[in-house]
Amino acid sequence: MAPWFRRSRPRPPAPTLASRDTAVAATRVDLHELTPATEIFLGHCAALHLTFFEQVSHAVANAPRVAEKDALSAVAATALERYRGLVAEIERLKLDRSSVMEPHLRGVQEFERRTMGADWHEQVASAHVTIGFLTDFWMRLAAGLPREARDRVEAALAVGDLEGPLHAILERAIAANPRLSSRLALWCRRLVGDTMLQARSALTLRAGSARDEEQIEPVFTELIAEHTRRLDRLGLTA
Amino acid sequence: MAPWFRRSRPRPPAPTLASRDTAVAATRVDLHELTPATEIFLGHCAALHLTFFEQVSHAVANAPRVAEKDALSAVAATALERYRGLVAEIERLKLDRSSVMEPHLRGVQEFERRTMGADWHEQVASAHVTIGFLTDFWMRLAAGLPREARDRVEAALAVGDLEGPLHAILERAIAANPRLSSRLALWCRRLVGDTMLQARSALTLRAGSARDEEQIEPVFTELIAEHTRRLDRLGLTA
Repeated sequence: MAPWFRRSRPRPPAPTLASRDTAVAATRVDLHELTPATEIFLGHCAALHLTFFEQVSHAVANAPRVAEKDALSAVAATALERYRGLVAEIERLKLDRSSVMEPHLRGVQEFERRTMGADWHEQVASAHVTIGFLTDFWMRLAAGLPREARDRVEAALAVGDLEGPLHAILERAIAANPRLSSRLALWCRRLVGDTMLQARSALTLRAGSARDEEQIEPVFTELIAEHTRRLDRLGLTA
Repeated sequence: MAPWFRRSRPRPPAPTLASRDTAVAATRVDLHELTPATEIFLGHCAALHLTFFEQVSHAVANAPRVAEKDALSAVAATALERYRGLVAEIERLKLDRSSVMEPHLRGVQEFERRTMGADWHEQVASAHVTIGFLTDFWMRLAAGLPREARDRVEAALAVGDLEGPLHAILERAIAANPRLSSRLALWCRRLVGDTMLQARSALTLRAGSARDEEQIEPVFTELIAEHTRRLDRLGLTA
């Protein structure tokens, strides 16, 4: 068994205290040895949340009807709120938000461009899959931050609900047009590679370190299992 | 003197109580005889605020650097907050938000398309000019709503500050590149026609009524004066 299993976070002692976020409660493995310095973590994660916002607001603009625009605008507001929570942490550390985020902008924009999708359905599916996967990932990566920063970052990433509304919008769209399923299933499978590369780019890896790769593997296995469950709930085969 | 002057809202009695919104405090003429039914007012104004959000979030996506993305994302959040305030009023009246907004979607989207701008600078200038003009307009139109709805709609439209941050972003861009001035001045002048048509489309007008036109004229004269002041503050000749 690899050493990071023993150093993993202890489970909450009181099982009667229900966690508000089951994804966090279920965490068994984390990435804390590969977590970058707080400044780099916050700059990358905040820049990424700006692109989450851009991705969702693009879907707002392309939505066919007011009902979908309205539902997606609430998702955009939540993404912005999480972004602001991360920026608040940057400010608390007396760092300049622009300087901290700027080095990560090109990478996250390129990721956004590659995962944008060709039409509205693909755009919503992209938001659901990539934001879901990467939020799971950054929650695990936050385990390696200094205690106080970790608590606040985890709180910022848990604000509101992105998964529920995006799932509901896709579910309605697929119910209205079942032929979407096979195309969206393919599209979501296509997204996993770019999304894993984006996640990996946030890790502090020693070149050629077999130990680092051993740490990554079980985490990515878990993240892909969550990704598969996310698509299963939509009736899409991952 | 036209009759609506006499029926205009009385000025606040206590001059020591400073208004938080000088545009409202300075209102001398309003449009209350031309205000549509509350349901139509709310549907149109909420749909318009969705497009304000889309317009600003488009500018977030196209912004050259993190600093501008960050500043514009705060503007987008404020536009969404105003939208939510209008939707809350729709819900309070037990109306279905989608049905109430849907009839206005095509008109506001066409307006958005025509005023989008060819590059980021024009996009920000469009947001500044069209949102500024139309917010002034809808504030005056709200004067004709039933008392309670009017108070809440005026409060929703006054949430946060859109004008200040958009002005600041444009001011910095022009300072960094003074040659922008002449092009943006032309673009902003070009926007006035479409913006006035969008405003006019919200009025309840009797076909060929000279009296209706007489009511509109002084209001639009005021709105254009505010538009000119908005551009003057940026050193742009309207």
